[in-house]
Amino acid sequence: MESITTSSYAVHFNGNAFLQLKDYLGKHTYSKVFVLVDENTKEHCLPVFEKTLANAFPFDLIAIKAGEVHKNIEACTHVWQALSALDADRKSLLINLGGGVVTDLGGFVASTYKRGIDFINIPTTLLSMVDASVGGKTGVDLGSLKNQIGVINQPKMVLVSTVFLETLEDRQMRSGFAEMLKHGLIQDASYWKALKSLSNLDTIGGDIYTSVSIKNKVVLEDPTEQHLRKILNFGHTLGHAVESYFLENDDKETLLHGEAIAVGMVLEAYLSNKLTGLPTEDLEDIKTSFFKWYPKVDFTSSDITAILSMLKFDKKNSHGNINFVLLESIGNPVIDVKIPNDLYEGAFAYYKV
Amino acid sequence: MESITTSSYAVHFNGNAFLQLKDYLGKHTYSKVFVLVDENTKEHCLPVFEKTLANAFPFDLIAIKAGEVHKNIEACTHVWQALSALDADRKSLLINLGGGVVTDLGGFVASTYKRGIDFINIPTTLLSMVDASVGGKTGVDLGSLKNQIGVINQPKMVLVSTVFLETLEDRQMRSGFAEMLKHGLIQDASYWKALKSLSNLDTIGGDIYTSVSIKNKVVLEDPTEQHLRKILNFGHTLGHAVESYFLENDDKETLLHGEAIAVGMVLEAYLSNKLTGLPTEDLEDIKTSFFKWYPKVDFTSSDITAILSMLKFDKKNSHGNINFVLLESIGNPVIDVKIPNDLYEGAFAYYKV
Repeated sequence: MESITTSSYAVHFNGNAFLQLKDYLGKHTYSKVFVLVDENTKEHCLPVFEKTLANAFPFDLIAIKAGEVHKNIEACTHVWQALSALDADRKSLLINLGGGVVTDLGGFVASTYKRGIDFINIPTTLLSMVDASVGGKTGVDLGSLKNQIGVINQPKMVLVSTVFLETLEDRQMRSGFAEMLKHGLIQDASYWKALKSLSNLDTIGGDIYTSVSIKNKVVLEDPTEQHLRKILNFGHTLGHAVESYFLENDDKETLLHGEAIAVGMVLEAYLSNKLTGLPTEDLEDIKTSFFKWYPKVDFTSSDITAILSMLKFDKKNSHGNINFVLLESIGNPVIDVKIPNDLYEGAFAYYKV
Repeated sequence: MESITTSSYAVHFNGNAFLQLKDYLGKHTYSKVFVLVDENTKEHCLPVFEKTLANAFPFDLIAIKAGEVHKNIEACTHVWQALSALDADRKSLLINLGGGVVTDLGGFVASTYKRGIDFINIPTTLLSMVDASVGGKTGVDLGSLKNQIGVINQPKMVLVSTVFLETLEDRQMRSGFAEMLKHGLIQDASYWKALKSLSNLDTIGGDIYTSVSIKNKVVLEDPTEQHLRKILNFGHTLGHAVESYFLENDDKETLLHGEAIAVGMVLEAYLSNKLTGLPTEDLEDIKTSFFKWYPKVDFTSSDITAILSMLKFDKKNSHGNINFVLLESIGNPVIDVKIPNDLYEGAFAYYKV
C-alpha cells in the first residue's frame, strides 16, 4: 500500500512498514534505540514486533502501566528517569509501540527529554492508527483534564500494521471506529454511508487508509488549528467533557475515548439540527447509526450538570467562550459556533430517548 | 537603549522595556494575563513591577518556591494546576518575573500548557539577564540532572531592567558575572580584559547589553546548536557536573550556577592549554582572574571521582563521547574536542594549587 506523506514524515502501511523502519535505522546513526510499551502491548504486540524485525537492531525496553488513568506526568517522570538511567542521549531514538496513551505520552516524553529526541510511532489500536498517526499532538492528562499538558511535535515516521488489530477486543475496535465515523461525518458522506452500513468490523483494516488520508488532508491545510483543522473536534467538545467526567468519577465505569465521542457526536448532531441546519433525517440517521454500535450511556441530571461544568476546561475554549464544530449536513462541517446555554439539556434529552 | 532583535522577538532594555510591554499588551487581546514569581521575586521585584506598570493591565499571580532545588516537575505541576484553576486558556499570556529558575520553568510550563501558550520573560538576576534572555532554552531538572527535561521555544519578548539588580546580593551578582566573563573568553578578548579588570560590579549594568549582543549573535548563526552555538558551553561541561554534584550532596553547600562554571572554566582552560594550544600565560590569567572574584572550592578525591562519573549525563554528550568546547586563545574557541581520560585529574590538581 502506498505511504501517506504528511508535512514532515511518512505513514507507512502493513508489509511496507517494517521494511521502511529497517531501512530508516540503517541510514541513521542513533546512539541507542528505546522501545516504549505498556503492560498490554508488552504482552501482545512486542512479540509480533520482535518476530517481524528478527533482531534487525538492538533496543532497550521501557514499560508503563496501561490505561488512560496512567497517562499523566508521573508516568512521564518514570520514562524520563528510565531513559536517563539507560544512558539515553540527544542522539537516541524512542519507538512508541502502543495505543494512544503510549504514543501521546511517548511523543511528549521524547519531545521534552534533553529538549527533544527523535521518536517513531507504531500505533497498535484502531483508535491510535486512525487518529494519533497524523497531527503531531503529544501530551498527557492533568488530573481529569485530558491532554492538558503537551506539545505539538512530529514523529520521524509512523508505521500502521493491521497485524496488531488481531490482539484487540471488540470494545477497543469500536472505540477507534468512532473516529472513522467522524471522518465520514465531517468530510465524506459516502464514506460515512459505507462505514455505518457495515455488519461487523472484521474488514475495517482496509478503511484505515481512507481515514488517515482524510485526517492528513485536513492537518496539511491547517497544521496549527486556526480554522479547518478544528473540524476534527466534531463530537469532542461534549465528548471530552463526558470522558473526563467518567474518568474522574469512581462510581462510573470509565468510557473509552471512542465511546465518549460517540455520545458527543449524537449530542452535537442535535445542536447542529437546532443551529446550523442539519436536516432532521440526518440527525436521526446519526443517532440510529451510533446506537447500532455503541450501547446507550446512562446520565442522571446531576451527571449532566457536572459534565457541563467541565466544558470550560476544553483546550479549544478561549475568553470563556465555548466554540463548537457543528454540521450543516453530513460531510459539511461549520466551525466556531456558540451554543445558547438552554440547548444543552435538550441535547441530552434527545440522546436519552 | 536600542532593543536587540533575536530570530523571533526583541529584548528591550531599561526605560524602554515597560513601555514596550504596555504597547504589546495594548495591541494583543489576551484572555488573561498571569505573572509567575518565586518567594523572593514576589517580595523584592513584584512591587517594582507593579509600581512601574501602574495597573496598566490586570493579572493573576502564581508563586513557586525559590531555588534551584525547586526547579522540577513537581513545581511545574503546581503551576499547570494553578493555571487550570484560574481558567487560563490557549489565548492566555504568562509573564515570568524572576531569575533563571522562574524563566526556565515558566517558559517550559507555558510551552506545554494546552500545547503551548505565549510567554514573556522579565529576568531579575544578572545571570538570567545575560544568559537566559536569548536562546529559547526552557526546562527543569530531573533529580540532580540539570535541565534534563525541556523544550526549545521562544518568548514573545524579553525585558531587561537593571532596576531589579538593586535587590540582588553580591553572590548573585558574581554568579551572573561568570557568564559575562565567558562571553569575553569565547568571543571578545578586549571585553574579557575590560571585565576582569573591574574593581567591583557596581557599574556592570552597562555591560549587559554587550553580553546579550554576543549571545544573540551566536544563537542567530546557529539556533539549533549544530556547531557555533556549542561555544556557549565553554566551562559548562565540567561546570554542570560540579554544580549537579554539589546540588545532590547534602553535605555540601550548594554552588550557584556562575560559581560552578567559574570552576569549570578554570578546569577547561587547563585542558585547553594541554590540547588546543591556549598559551600558558592566558591560562594563568584566566585562573588568577577567576580567583579574584570567586572563592576556591574544596574538592576531595572522592568528590572528583563522583563529579567525573556525572559527566555522562551532560545533554551535549552522544554515543558515550564527551565533547568539550576549549580555547585556542582568549576569544577563539574550538568545539567538539575529546579529552583523554588521564587529563581530568591534572585539571583538578591545577585548580587546587
